[in-house]
Amino acid sequence: MIKAGIVGASGYTGGELVRLLHAHPNVGSLALSSRTYSGKKVGDVFSSLRGLDYQFEELTPEQIVADTEVVFVAAPHGVAMQYAPIVDAAGKKMIDLGPDFRFRDVSVFERWYKIPHSCPDLLADAVYGLPEVHRLEIAEATIIGNPGCYPTSIILALAPLLEAGAVADGFVIADSKSGVSGAGRKADAAYNFCELTGEVRPYGVLHHRHVPEIEQELSLLAKSGVKALFTPHLVPTIRGIVSTVYVSIKPDYSKESLRSLFEERYKDEPFIRLLGEGSHPGTKAVLGSNYCDISVDFDESTSMAVVVSAIDNLGKGAASQAVQCMNIMFGLDETAGIAGLPVFP
Amino acid sequence: MIKAGIVGASGYTGGELVRLLHAHPNVGSLALSSRTYSGKKVGDVFSSLRGLDYQFEELTPEQIVADTEVVFVAAPHGVAMQYAPIVDAAGKKMIDLGPDFRFRDVSVFERWYKIPHSCPDLLADAVYGLPEVHRLEIAEATIIGNPGCYPTSIILALAPLLEAGAVADGFVIADSKSGVSGAGRKADAAYNFCELTGEVRPYGVLHHRHVPEIEQELSLLAKSGVKALFTPHLVPTIRGIVSTVYVSIKPDYSKESLRSLFEERYKDEPFIRLLGEGSHPGTKAVLGSNYCDISVDFDESTSMAVVVSAIDNLGKGAASQAVQCMNIMFGLDETAGIAGLPVFP
Amino acid sequence: MIKAGIVGASGYTGGELVRLLHAHPNVGSLALSSRTYSGKKVGDVFSSLRGLDYQFEELTPEQIVADTEVVFVAAPHGVAMQYAPIVDAAGKKMIDLGPDFRFRDVSVFERWYKIPHSCPDLLADAVYGLPEVHRLEIAEATIIGNPGCYPTSIILALAPLLEAGAVADGFVIADSKSGVSGAGRKADAAYNFCELTGEVRPYGVLHHRHVPEIEQELSLLAKSGVKALFTPHLVPTIRGIVSTVYVSIKPDYSKESLRSLFEERYKDEPFIRLLGEGSHPGTKAVLGSNYCDISVDFDESTSMAVVVSAIDNLGKGAASQAVQCMNIMFGLDETAGIAGLPVFP
Amino acid sequence: MIKAGIVGASGYTGGELVRLLHAHPNVGSLALSSRTYSGKKVGDVFSSLRGLDYQFEELTPEQIVADTEVVFVAAPHGVAMQYAPIVDAAGKKMIDLGPDFRFRDVSVFERWYKIPHSCPDLLADAVYGLPEVHRLEIAEATIIGNPGCYPTSIILALAPLLEAGAVADGFVIADSKSGVSGAGRKADAAYNFCELTGEVRPYGVLHHRHVPEIEQELSLLAKSGVKALFTPHLVPTIRGIVSTVYVSIKPDYSKESLRSLFEERYKDEPFIRLLGEGSHPGTKAVLGSNYCDISVDFDESTSMAVVVSAIDNLGKGAASQAVQCMNIMFGLDETAGIAGLPVFP
Repeated sequence: MIKAGIVGASGYTGGELVRLLHAHPNVGSLALSSRTYSGKKVGDVFSSLRGLDYQFEELTPEQIVADTEVVFVAAPHGVAMQYAPIVDAAGKKMIDLGPDFRFRDVSVFERWYKIPHSCPDLLADAVYGLPEVHRLEIAEATIIGNPGCYPTSIILALAPLLEAGAVADGFVIADSKSGVSGAGRKADAAYNFCELTGEVRPYGVLHHRHVPEIEQELSLLAKSGVKALFTPHLVPTIRGIVSTVYVSIKPDYSKESLRSLFEERYKDEPFIRLLGEGSHPGTKAVLGSNYCDISVDFDESTSMAVVVSAIDNLGKGAASQAVQCMNIMFGLDETAGIAGLPVFP
Repeated sequence: MIKAGIVGASGYTGGELVRLLHAHPNVGSLALSSRTYSGKKVGDVFSSLRGLDYQFEELTPEQIVADTEVVFVAAPHGVAMQYAPIVDAAGKKMIDLGPDFRFRDVSVFERWYKIPHSCPDLLADAVYGLPEVHRLEIAEATIIGNPGCYPTSIILALAPLLEAGAVADGFVIADSKSGVSGAGRKADAAYNFCELTGEVRPYGVLHHRHVPEIEQELSLLAKSGVKALFTPHLVPTIRGIVSTVYVSIKPDYSKESLRSLFEERYKDEPFIRLLGEGSHPGTKAVLGSNYCDISVDFDESTSMAVVVSAIDNLGKGAASQAVQCMNIMFGLDETAGIAGLPVFP
Repeated sequence: MIKAGIVGASGYTGGELVRLLHAHPNVGSLALSSRTYSGKKVGDVFSSLRGLDYQFEELTPEQIVADTEVVFVAAPHGVAMQYAPIVDAAGKKMIDLGPDFRFRDVSVFERWYKIPHSCPDLLADAVYGLPEVHRLEIAEATIIGNPGCYPTSIILALAPLLEAGAVADGFVIADSKSGVSGAGRKADAAYNFCELTGEVRPYGVLHHRHVPEIEQELSLLAKSGVKALFTPHLVPTIRGIVSTVYVSIKPDYSKESLRSLFEERYKDEPFIRLLGEGSHPGTKAVLGSNYCDISVDFDESTSMAVVVSAIDNLGKGAASQAVQCMNIMFGLDETAGIAGLPVFP
Repeated sequence: MIKAGIVGASGYTGGELVRLLHAHPNVGSLALSSRTYSGKKVGDVFSSLRGLDYQFEELTPEQIVADTEVVFVAAPHGVAMQYAPIVDAAGKKMIDLGPDFRFRDVSVFERWYKIPHSCPDLLADAVYGLPEVHRLEIAEATIIGNPGCYPTSIILALAPLLEAGAVADGFVIADSKSGVSGAGRKADAAYNFCELTGEVRPYGVLHHRHVPEIEQELSLLAKSGVKALFTPHLVPTIRGIVSTVYVSIKPDYSKESLRSLFEERYKDEPFIRLLGEGSHPGTKAVLGSNYCDISVDFDESTSMAVVVSAIDNLGKGAASQAVQCMNIMFGLDETAGIAGLPVFP
């Protein structure tokens, strides 16, 4: 049984990790590191977890790495890079749900996150933890940069098209709509219930930090540079991302042939559900799960494809995808502990 | 492995039963009976269940009883009584999530539901499926009348007080707030998103059909007649019931002694969480789970206790409680398949 | 044209005052005092008010009183009492939307709010600004203690019964459900959209600060002491309060005679809507308005009346009620500027 | 004082028309035509309008036209064309909130709505009721085709760019997010509160009926054909549309010069609010109002502009825009009766 640890377990992603790892058939123990909540039971911080025995402890990076086999870091940028050398030295594994280990080019990280990277060598060995794209590398990795929520939804929407060389130019538009939990457990009046209930609004237009991550992975898939115009929107729901992706397709494709690219590419993927014609992904159908639902439409008159994907930003967009990576890293059934069906309605 | 069947699987309670029974470690097969949806896959009716292989079939009562060991009936009143004689003759088991088998006095059923009961003898043998109160009888039963959602929350809030004889008069006030899913999957403009988002409103004041069920069980607990003044309210959330119960307490009780009654009564109950002083139950902490959270407050100047309970109306108030009954009836671990933690946030 | 000022215009109640006073036919100018937002346009603080010319200014109490005829104070307790002597000396008027001027007994204020009152003499002259109960005194007043939101809904639900002497004992139970805006524009993770969407939960059980205000006014109406057991609940909507009030009625009343008490009492009130039998008040029907909707039900077997009232907590429960008081104080049409119909859906 | 009539006053748009016209300073009477609700008071159909005296009557088209000066038709396609000849013969005015009179080419209407148009000659004289684009023609018109909600938001977002010839090719992408009220007061389980709370989902991908209307008006503005790729999404709020429009800009434009086009074009428009850099439109800032908020961003590296607009779909997207047209048609102050500020929060 795996001994797992979580750094940053008091946030939404951390709480979701506790929920999943507690019920995981191959996880035997769970250590929760926190200075702020040290001594508190997990149920004091998450009323949903009342009755569980887990207690937050003030653990040094060294302690939590020593006590566990895998550490999940659900913390702001700059934290995981402090754990990485310790993990590496101890021969343990780490899955970082932040951005520290997502980039192939350290300068991209440093430019967008405005801090120096303290272990670029470990970054070079880290793997971008999107199993549908990097499964084999994940199996060999010791440090995973778990993908951002928006990038997960956008990359999965485009991988079949880019890998097949179907995209006409190196340019995509991704219009995403995200539930509020993506912003974290914020004590900020701008995130007050009254400010966001009923609110739909774009933010970070042209400047969101997920852009370089999206472009890196799309370019790798295309084997050439891809530029992404990305507009995230806040929508008044707790969980869920819908990304509507617009892309120009090369001549000689039809609705059917485009769809075949997706069917072929994802036919063995346990967490991708390709929807039938006329159905479109929505946030509720994936709530609390590790699914990514995808639809493909094609406008023949303009050769534009409209690909829509939906994920739970705290699930496939964060915690359950991290567990999926753990399963692969430890040679377990890839669906272990994350096959729970969406809660509906 | 148990072979289970569901009648009425296209409603919200039915969908929740599919979600739970699909993942239940002791359930091997699932038959879904429906005339309307016959031939459809379950994912066509619940987008959350896309990808599952279950298909609705048009099955006669005789067929579904013959093919399964236990039938869950998630249908309006009057349906389960048609299945009961067939279940009884076949020596199978039935758990009715409607009201047909909840009443000890057939005339109460007939007066409130305005139809004759077609098998009063089987009603006499049926057991009210609230495990915390009727566990031993459930273990022996073949037909279960699974409790209504409001009654579950109210009976659990009062059982310790009534059993201990602490209630001063045979009268309680229960002010309940329920999410909209309690009304079912209605095609009614009054339940349109736009009509209910932002709406808080009582309904069925003094006349709700759960009153006789509440009074029956409270009176059994008190061993004397208990009158309940019950006011349900619709609140703008999908799932969850909070019941705030006001009851006059006999002299010589203190805050501490009242609380001890609850601690003692529920100390071994896996699904009751008694909250510490200053904490109060809420709908989110139980979402998607089988938990019932309870708080107790006492106003010494008026000798009034205020007991608050929260459940998920589709969980402990319907589907997961039915599975809890099934577990008891089949001699399984009572928590099998229903130990899932609440999804938060 | 009246020159009005607002202290605390950056909160929800303050914003509602701006919305109403801007469109008020008898208000000619509006001064907004704020140290924090000094120099900002009102549209920078409320995106809904973009395009309006009002600007926050850092004004001393002396300045805003000198520049206006009436000052609305929408600030925490302890603020208005600093303005009162200045208002009084200048012969101006003040409407305090906080609690400083609501109590007849200064010791009650001091016990519940835990600060000394700096001008008990002015408190003695102040009037509780509930027009349906204190209209004549409001007309003569210079300082108004505008009622709390919960008290408004509960007092209006009970006034006809208490004035008629129909209540059997000096005891009422009030179970209230409030939208989140009642808590103000809080930067607190507990009020984050993700924490409260879907949440229904009591709070302040037995200890809410509105209790003494409720008991003061109910006792005045009854001409004898009335004890109130009050349980507020947070419900997941922005605006609106529904109060469900349970009260024991003296013998010889019927459903009809109780209803007549309400009809007679409120027949000339422009903002009270008494609902027909079978209809019950809800938050949406009063959204953004100054209405208070009321229903009366009577259980003859227990002689209990169930009175339900609904208001917009920022409207009749705060800002529009304050404007109603202003209208009365200035001899205007009582409905001027606050006759706007609820926005639906 | 104008005598106004409404056909279809029991729907959401109709209810909003009642709310606005009741308070309109130049409207003296209001006739509500309905066969279904004949004899009912408006408060029986809209609880928000309890207490108003208006009653639904069963009026023939001839009667309502005879009794009023202007008829608002808030009904499905095919209804208004039955009123048009009667209106025309009587020399009265009609504002159709449906699609019957929006198209310059009758064949476009017939192809998309799949019914023949019964009065193509009157269609030829009708004016598309978007005041910011067709103000002078509206002043002269007797029949108005009031714009669809999505087209309003998209055309206003693009008019300054198209009129200036700044768009590089005749192609735009419009990704819109709409509140649920846009679908009307539907008795359909798919619109049940439980199905849509928390749901974000595209629909009508590549096939929405607003496409031809959008393309007609954009092409008129551009003085050449414009193709629109339009993807509407349902988002879980009642009111509001946000349209995010992507368009390729000709060389030699900068962020500043693009912005100037908007400033110049809209500087005298009372209902257009152009937001400052870094601010983006949201649904809440326009709730219940006639405002259209607009932001402009420009990605110089790709020459793509991202223009975002927000309106209330029942306000500027339907009812208050219709009243704006009425004001223009009757020579009134264009803002009369529709200057109400958004309700917030």
